[in-house]
Amino acid sequence: MENFIAYNPTKLVFGKGSIAQLGKELQPYGKKALVVIGKGSVKQNGILEAVYQQLTAAGVSYTLYEGIKSNPIYQDADAAVAQAKIFQADMLIAVGGGSVIDSAKAIAAGYYVEHSVWDFYLRKAPAPTKALPIFAVLTLAATGTEMNMFTVLQSDDEKAKHGYGSPLLYPKVSFLDPEYTYSVPQNYTAYGVADLIAHSLEQFFDTSHSPLSDAYAAEIIRLAMHYGLEVHQNPQSYEARANIMWLATSALNGSLAAGKLGGDFGVHGIEHCLSVLFDIAHGAGLSIVYPAWMRHFYSQIEGKLTFLAQRTLHEKATANDFIVALENFFTTINTPIRLAKAGIGKDKHALILENLKQNNPKGRFFKLTATDYSSILELMA
Amino acid sequence: MENFIAYNPTKLVFGKGSIAQLGKELQPYGKKALVVIGKGSVKQNGILEAVYQQLTAAGVSYTLYEGIKSNPIYQDADAAVAQAKIFQADMLIAVGGGSVIDSAKAIAAGYYVEHSVWDFYLRKAPAPTKALPIFAVLTLAATGTEMNMFTVLQSDDEKAKHGYGSPLLYPKVSFLDPEYTYSVPQNYTAYGVADLIAHSLEQFFDTSHSPLSDAYAAEIIRLAMHYGLEVHQNPQSYEARANIMWLATSALNGSLAAGKLGGDFGVHGIEHCLSVLFDIAHGAGLSIVYPAWMRHFYSQIEGKLTFLAQRTLHEKATANDFIVALENFFTTINTPIRLAKAGIGKDKHALILENLKQNNPKGRFFKLTATDYSSILELMA
Repeated sequence: MENFIAYNPTKLVFGKGSIAQLGKELQPYGKKALVVIGKGSVKQNGILEAVYQQLTAAGVSYTLYEGIKSNPIYQDADAAVAQAKIFQADMLIAVGGGSVIDSAKAIAAGYYVEHSVWDFYLRKAPAPTKALPIFAVLTLAATGTEMNMFTVLQSDDEKAKHGYGSPLLYPKVSFLDPEYTYSVPQNYTAYGVADLIAHSLEQFFDTSHSPLSDAYAAEIIRLAMHYGLEVHQNPQSYEARANIMWLATSALNGSLAAGKLGGDFGVHGIEHCLSVLFDIAHGAGLSIVYPAWMRHFYSQIEGKLTFLAQRTLHEKATANDFIVALENFFTTINTPIRLAKAGIGKDKHALILENLKQNNPKGRFFKLTATDYSSILELMA
Repeated sequence: MENFIAYNPTKLVFGKGSIAQLGKELQPYGKKALVVIGKGSVKQNGILEAVYQQLTAAGVSYTLYEGIKSNPIYQDADAAVAQAKIFQADMLIAVGGGSVIDSAKAIAAGYYVEHSVWDFYLRKAPAPTKALPIFAVLTLAATGTEMNMFTVLQSDDEKAKHGYGSPLLYPKVSFLDPEYTYSVPQNYTAYGVADLIAHSLEQFFDTSHSPLSDAYAAEIIRLAMHYGLEVHQNPQSYEARANIMWLATSALNGSLAAGKLGGDFGVHGIEHCLSVLFDIAHGAGLSIVYPAWMRHFYSQIEGKLTFLAQRTLHEKATANDFIVALENFFTTINTPIRLAKAGIGKDKHALILENLKQNNPKGRFFKLTATDYSSILELMA
């Protein structure tokens, strides 16, 4: 086991009706909130109204920033920072999925500086020393950002997507009501499941010897395949929605990182190139890249794949069985496993390769070279 | 899944040489520390000296409270509170195992009140509103108190052992260096393994449906049996010590509590009667009570036992196989599975029954009556 630090100060309030505790939780933090949302579905389904009721009852005034994109861009975060400064916000309430919460993290750090938030992601600015407190009301089970210190934004102009992390960016409290995800459409539900499985795999393929973390990753994947199928068949099942929601948080809240060196995340790097180029959902990109990546590095990861196969399928399952089972599962729940399935034809391969070489994503353990990019691209075709 | 709150603000610094970060971590908390230790083994093995070096380098003055017992009594905590008040301590440094850290938690809360700490445990005093910050340097892998808000103390006069919990009692930072456990003797190492397995079982037998928590519990038990054997055979194995240490923390830091209602803990209640009566190690008591408890409630828990058997042994293993395997494992690593083995003969049964009826321990899910006590006692004989 590698030396590690386990630390996660986020308080997670999980379950039916958890929103009822929002007012009480934010009370110590001030009287003025910037509420951040995406394209407005939370206006239709009553979730935003429930948040407003909590704010009003707690005597917290608010202003709304609307329009975070599902692949969030830094310009939105910069605009929201400006609005928060004018309003003199004491806190941020992110109501939405990973893109909204990741944007709120950028806004939280951006509030106390004069430069664009993007400078944090480009490592052009010094690390933040202060950040607004963030409260997250999650409406999509996928990225795990509700209980970690990471954020990913992109620049459409630069065709680049970058991550950033700071201990100041853990949400203070996150509210996870599985019923809030009942209205998530089947495809986005599936992308979320692909995302949480990918997070588990990224940490699993950190090859540092950490048996409990590896065992936990396998259990998350096993249950994600089980409940991913169940939620596909019955989107209104509370148990299925609740399990997927908790699995998604657990996949990236530090539980799988103990005794490791931070995960591989080469697949995430490749996927970021796909989503900046084609604006496809992050989870859909991941379900395309991961099988190809596993086939490409097969000889190096066969032992670890065999462990996964045996813990998630059955005692005699082989490494290859796992890849096939994962592909079949993704296909069943309708998240793509090939570029062609996502409408990205061979005519785009040159563009993808060019972007990969420009952004040059590297895994921490499985280093990626131009040769790897080409081979993985062929396998994704 | 039941509604739940996941929250654990303790920072855990894990690995070789982690003590080097103590000075930096405690700096924001003040300039005067009460150091709390047990019977003095940390004086011999250099651990206390390493702590003092950190304190001195950080400009923190200190005073020592020595003599916490392995079944810690409230009178020691009260005496340490008095010493801390005279010294005007800003913080507590607990250097030892669960008994020392549990005592530090009592001292932390007792520092700000005028009554005995025991009144918290008896629910005679209102909940604390302030507590001294606690830093823990762990020297024994067992109870998990280094990363939770719970504490257990006993009263020898009353022959009673009680637990208490408050969010104020999470250690600020805990330092876990597996090398610090190299010198733990074989029997105490084994009791620690029994303790962590018992914590996993207590939460596993909370019958609320929470698949990930159950899966995690099974993985902790599987690995505890593997590394428990390895550390028994090779006490100087870093990997074995590190795995056992992290498993013990993970068994009671909230990871197994998600979606559940707090665990059963009936076995802990029964064991507390054994340790107040006979001063046996908590883990040794647990390895005696658990097999008997599982046999007694067999028909009600057969399904859950079968899951455990299949996840920890092999796909075709039965419920009974698990109990037998656990007993064999405990016997191999030298922690007792019967009262007689711990030197507690049939002549003591009446005394045990009397204490059980007096303290009246109850499981949250498997309620215990006088009939249950008698039957379990027979099975423990």
